[in-house]
Amino acid sequence: MTVYLVGAGPGDPELITRRGAALLGRADVVVHDRLIAHELLDLAPASALRIDVGKQPGRSTRQHDINLLLVEHGRAGRVVVRLKGGDPFLFGRGGEEAEVLQEAGVPFEVVPGVSSAFAAPAAAGIPVTHRGVATSVTVVTGHVGDPSAPGGVDWTALARSGGTLVVLMGMSERATIAGALIAGGRGADTPVAVVHWGTTDRQRVVRTNLASLAEVDLPAPSAIVVGSVAGFDLRPGSRKPRDAKPPVPGAVPPGPTRSPA
Amino acid sequence: MTVYLVGAGPGDPELITRRGAALLGRADVVVHDRLIAHELLDLAPASALRIDVGKQPGRSTRQHDINLLLVEHGRAGRVVVRLKGGDPFLFGRGGEEAEVLQEAGVPFEVVPGVSSAFAAPAAAGIPVTHRGVATSVTVVTGHVGDPSAPGGVDWTALARSGGTLVVLMGMSERATIAGALIAGGRGADTPVAVVHWGTTDRQRVVRTNLASLAEVDLPAPSAIVVGSVAGFDLRPGSRKPRDAKPPVPGAVPPGPTRSPA
Repeated sequence: MTVYLVGAGPGDPELITRRGAALLGRADVVVHDRLIAHELLDLAPASALRIDVGKQPGRSTRQHDINLLLVEHGRAGRVVVRLKGGDPFLFGRGGEEAEVLQEAGVPFEVVPGVSSAFAAPAAAGIPVTHRGVATSVTVVTGHVGDPSAPGGVDWTALARSGGTLVVLMGMSERATIAGALIAGGRGADTPVAVVHWGTTDRQRVVRTNLASLAEVDLPAPSAIVVGSVAGFDLRPGSRKPRDAKPPVPGAVPPGPTRSPA
Repeated sequence: MTVYLVGAGPGDPELITRRGAALLGRADVVVHDRLIAHELLDLAPASALRIDVGKQPGRSTRQHDINLLLVEHGRAGRVVVRLKGGDPFLFGRGGEEAEVLQEAGVPFEVVPGVSSAFAAPAAAGIPVTHRGVATSVTVVTGHVGDPSAPGGVDWTALARSGGTLVVLMGMSERATIAGALIAGGRGADTPVAVVHWGTTDRQRVVRTNLASLAEVDLPAPSAIVVGSVAGFDLRPGSRKPRDAKPPVPGAVPPGPTRSPA
């Protein structure tokens, strides 16, 4: 009996790990998030119990109930795969589930996954780090609460760190985030890319800058990439980043540009 | 003809993606880093050309020569897998290789991988983010050059950001890094974990704090995790993090403690 906290990867079902796929293949119970590709759920035996605990507005399962599900099925001796988007320990409350399993004495294993924080930018031709351009990358959620609260985000310090920022779950607060980063010292003309449904066939990319981020209208799931690397487009046949004109300081472009992929 | 820049994952060969494994299975040429598991190289056909371009001291292949290799084999119409540890676009100069391929007009595809930046901590029971504890994570290399230089690391700003820090390739500069983070405002008693060869059967974990990081003697490859989450040990049967005594402010423990895994 073991509960496996498995990262499903960024969206493309081929980007799950071999370990994750193998565990799905022998699962008795799959407890999964809402945005999991059906190709991954199909890897589980036809007889496996599939439980959607997706946090859809109005009908989400509370975290406490998810924890109980994992403990109960684990204690019943079933092979339980808790399938989470991206990586189980990068946001997504996998740490809390592991805590509950540990306290309950239920054996478990964490199987990491490819995070959309890096894979969504990559699918848009953006390396989150690049020699001489960005030597650090920070991944953060679009939480805009009190920065001095436990776990609060200090956007001013993040603005000053100089590296690439990837904001997950940040579209509803994008105007506040852009304002905080500009107030913290990032130029209004700092390149920004928004990658919607990165790595999937529903992918859309909008390139803009901090000053115009508020105008980008893409729903979740979207990753917001902030920093010089967001101007890169390292995809075959795309314009070379060296060709891109440097933005005029202080100028606000007419609006976000859209690329087909 | 295509060159695939493939992330091999953090070390455990089962943690490569299904896409990466499938591409290896039809490679004509595999151009690989030094620290790649032989189980992964064995996925390529027996007839495939395997080229080790590992950056071992004194006998590494220069980046320029690697770029040439990729372009030449790509132009010759071969299926080329450039197999890199972790993720191709998170450090490791994958962005530079993509630039060269793009400029040469050689078709290529980036296949992301699980980064050791998140997977090594996870294998040590450490979630890089945790609700109410850490809502951001920054990944950085142990580069301690001029922070105002292009791509320079501003350790003071990183210290102030409050989130989890994961330093890759930082062991040789660990004393300088710890000093810079303490000078930047992180407490000397901030929990630190060093994870050597995370996810592999050679894994070793040392837990300490910033004041004592310099005393940790583990070679590369090691990931240094800095922040409250580094005190967690979410592995079955491990002590619960809630049981850990809070460190006495200002106290320096006798030395790093070692856990068997």
